[in-house]
Amino acid sequence: MSDAAATAKRPDILPVEPLRWVGEVDGYLRILDQTRLPSCEVWIDCVDVSVVWEAIRSLRVRGAPAIGLAAAYGVCLSLRSACGSTAGLCQIVNRAAEYLSTARPTAVNLFWALSRMRRRAVQLAEAPPEVFRQKLLEEAFAIHQEDRRMCEAIGRWGASLLPEHACVLTHCNTGALATGGIGTALGIVYTAVASKKKIHVYVDETRPLLQGARLTAWELMRWGISCTLICDSMAGALLARKKIDAVIVGADRIAARGDTANKIGTYGLAVLARHHGVPFYVAAPSSTFDLSLDSGQRIPIEERHPDEVRSPQGVLFAPADVPAWNPAFDVTPAELITAIICEKGVICPVTKERIAEVLESPMPQFAGK
Amino acid sequence: MSDAAATAKRPDILPVEPLRWVGEVDGYLRILDQTRLPSCEVWIDCVDVSVVWEAIRSLRVRGAPAIGLAAAYGVCLSLRSACGSTAGLCQIVNRAAEYLSTARPTAVNLFWALSRMRRRAVQLAEAPPEVFRQKLLEEAFAIHQEDRRMCEAIGRWGASLLPEHACVLTHCNTGALATGGIGTALGIVYTAVASKKKIHVYVDETRPLLQGARLTAWELMRWGISCTLICDSMAGALLARKKIDAVIVGADRIAARGDTANKIGTYGLAVLARHHGVPFYVAAPSSTFDLSLDSGQRIPIEERHPDEVRSPQGVLFAPADVPAWNPAFDVTPAELITAIICEKGVICPVTKERIAEVLESPMPQFAGK
Repeated sequence: MSDAAATAKRPDILPVEPLRWVGEVDGYLRILDQTRLPSCEVWIDCVDVSVVWEAIRSLRVRGAPAIGLAAAYGVCLSLRSACGSTAGLCQIVNRAAEYLSTARPTAVNLFWALSRMRRRAVQLAEAPPEVFRQKLLEEAFAIHQEDRRMCEAIGRWGASLLPEHACVLTHCNTGALATGGIGTALGIVYTAVASKKKIHVYVDETRPLLQGARLTAWELMRWGISCTLICDSMAGALLARKKIDAVIVGADRIAARGDTANKIGTYGLAVLARHHGVPFYVAAPSSTFDLSLDSGQRIPIEERHPDEVRSPQGVLFAPADVPAWNPAFDVTPAELITAIICEKGVICPVTKERIAEVLESPMPQFAGK
Repeated sequence: MSDAAATAKRPDILPVEPLRWVGEVDGYLRILDQTRLPSCEVWIDCVDVSVVWEAIRSLRVRGAPAIGLAAAYGVCLSLRSACGSTAGLCQIVNRAAEYLSTARPTAVNLFWALSRMRRRAVQLAEAPPEVFRQKLLEEAFAIHQEDRRMCEAIGRWGASLLPEHACVLTHCNTGALATGGIGTALGIVYTAVASKKKIHVYVDETRPLLQGARLTAWELMRWGISCTLICDSMAGALLARKKIDAVIVGADRIAARGDTANKIGTYGLAVLARHHGVPFYVAAPSSTFDLSLDSGQRIPIEERHPDEVRSPQGVLFAPADVPAWNPAFDVTPAELITAIICEKGVICPVTKERIAEVLESPMPQFAGK
């Protein structure tokens, strides 16, 4: 493990980017097709908003912050071949945002990024069309850049919570592939390793779509970080053997009281962590909070096609006609979360009051950055 | 669900048998290759003990009681082409038993069945060679027949614990494919349905080898029982939604104090069931108890090849070189088990004293059988 840690790269050098705007205002969005990883690295050049919608829906781009970024750039794409007045462009932006908001229901970052693009469009209603386009693209760049900085801050706050030698259990993918920066939960690991902590990561494979096996394992190995892949059902045995110092996961939506929707299986991990007295951390930027919902019971949970359960990666393992249930997320109540790590600080205990207090505080400036 | 339940078959008609002795004393063992299910039904005719060893090791035959049966018949096969004195045959039996006992380490039924065959051989040491062969085959038949009767008794005891309408969550495969009869945990479901209870079964897919998706779902559909397949990581969300009335699993080895080794993932389910106040039942015949071990910590846990984690059914999903951990079983402490259902009765509370008391009692005679 120490060898792997010694070769780990600095966290401000991204191991991979899930998406990138290519060119100027008439450019396009290049998305890494994450459904093809780890066997192939295929990039999709999106010149149309419908391609972005499909990429989000099909999880070619996934991870709550990255979904928000894709949607923001998707709005810019909607203007690519448009001409006419700023009022007309404003209507196109609204229609594109409306359309993109239907791609997936749970990750609030999608709606957050689209709202921000619409608000910017309203602010620019009096600008000439070319300025309107340019400023909207700059807004998407700003969201991207802010996400990168939020990841770095989350990484620093979170890394400070980990001991010098730690085994971390994580679920799904919350790294560079899921965000505009180094990631949320994995960003904490990268930052801790960069600061010379000895970290080993146990990676839940994360059925049904195997984001842990396909993406997190790939990203950690690319980054030179010591890791072990397990099936989701092995987490209990690992905790019972006292192998885990902390469980760290990401989030798709956090309600005002701290209840957290995240990849299916997160809730079971939280119950297991509590049973074993192991800290359970959620890492997410403030754009993942939805203060309009008091409790997690009101978070809409996406249910996907049963074939994702019956046929992992298209290979049929079960009787073709067996009914299957496929919720993409579950909700972990605040009571089971030791702390939420966001860019503004560590929210602990996880209460409505403490969440409001931290979210209202300014973004901290870390020394040396 | 009621339609499916209405077409359910009687539990004394087996939906499928995992293995069968074909012919007389010079016959052979036919094993259903469960690694090929549900896509193909392939039978392997074993004429040599090494083929049985490989079938156990590779999980072509699996399930603790069925492994014991395969081993008992494997001992008979070792005599198939042997000639000479009874003393020589006795030595062959001992060598075959020694060899078969190395096939897998955790399920105690393997060692239990082999010990019984060796004891019978010792009893027959003075018999003529042909009588020796014949009586050993009869011993294997007796083990098979007793296992069938034990499954029926477990089914009756267990069915009496279920309400008239129940949703049951199960893990791995514990049905006809895993035993010489209707099964243990699934036998309870079959018996409850046959007695007109309305049962719906949620089936954990059971990674890494997918015995739930491939075998339990297939068996339940063949049997006409209403079921829903889920990924292992979805059990928590199901319990949180109050969808489950009981969790029922099988066992591979039960220590004197009730700690139970079973398919990896069982322990996590037990913690989740306790968290939600849902009863957690273990169903197993008395041949699964190992009273020589006081606690579950001493049960040897098989660790299998990492490729079973990285490449489900031979399809690579993760980076080929990522390290993976693959324990085949975990241990659930007695404190998390509501009751153990064996053929002699319901062990509740699960304590060393109550286990000894029930195991020492005679097998009950059920009215109407």
